[in-house]
Amino acid sequence: MRDYFPGLIHLGDAVQFIDLFANVTDRGRLFEDFEYDEVRQLARHMPCYRAGRGTVLIGEGEDGDFGLLVLSGRIGVVKRNAAGQGKRIGEIGPGGTLGEMSMIDGQVRAASCIVEEDAEFAVLDREELTVIIADDPRLGIKVLVELVQHLSGKLRVASSRLAEALAV
Amino acid sequence: MRDYFPGLIHLGDAVQFIDLFANVTDRGRLFEDFEYDEVRQLARHMPCYRAGRGTVLIGEGEDGDFGLLVLSGRIGVVKRNAAGQGKRIGEIGPGGTLGEMSMIDGQVRAASCIVEEDAEFAVLDREELTVIIADDPRLGIKVLVELVQHLSGKLRVASSRLAEALAV
Repeated sequence: MRDYFPGLIHLGDAVQFIDLFANVTDRGRLFEDFEYDEVRQLARHMPCYRAGRGTVLIGEGEDGDFGLLVLSGRIGVVKRNAAGQGKRIGEIGPGGTLGEMSMIDGQVRAASCIVEEDAEFAVLDREELTVIIADDPRLGIKVLVELVQHLSGKLRVASSRLAEALAV
Repeated sequence: MRDYFPGLIHLGDAVQFIDLFANVTDRGRLFEDFEYDEVRQLARHMPCYRAGRGTVLIGEGEDGDFGLLVLSGRIGVVKRNAAGQGKRIGEIGPGGTLGEMSMIDGQVRAASCIVEEDAEFAVLDREELTVIIADDPRLGIKVLVELVQHLSGKLRVASSRLAEALAV
């Protein structure tokens, strides 16, 4: 498995965090259709890290093929507008995900993700997702449905904020 | 198969539109990993309709368990802000999708979708998607990956517009 963040404290795979994993995923109503064994199987594919306040986990415009599942702490999402000003367009806490767009569509990072409160998180990349889908399509389908639900939730929030922010 | 829009011209399932279907899906870079037979199989689950300008296909706040694949025309996306004013937050043309959030997450419609140029579209509901996944997990996975890519694209657009629209 790749080391995604050589500069950060690597905590091993998510299996040892299985209770925290199950706990945040419960809280976020993630994995509601997952058996415990399936969460465990998924966790084996996800290395975990700890990062302190101010750490830039994802940089807008960079390449990247992995997503993050936040286990603890808080991560802010900042996007530059056309004038180059950084706007804080959202925040993600335990049970939330980051970076899944680039993981799936292969395009560059849409925004920067910066740790606002010391955070622990698990990483899933495109290659591991492909392995999961190939080895166990049933589990792969559940992971994809989770991704769709996360994106859907974020798009709902972004749409609401956009409807508020638009002048006309 | 349910009749989703009793008031509209029902055009049968999407199989007879297979060329149009393949054409718009090409244009939208949809289904790039789909075999022709898989597109055909999917099309069997998707009834098609035609709707004139001004038709409200989806109403914000309503229940709904289906998504639309736009084959022709243009559909505007309008969302009310807290003050009750309708804001046009986007538009969808051929190859684009609408309503996939409620199809997947079961929550109410996040916005209204109103035909701006006479449109043809194909419908996929949660039950048919479940049937596809159960009958042919490989095809189900491809459909889910498509949904993730569509949502990802929309979230990228919404995030950009939000970064522009936010004052601070």
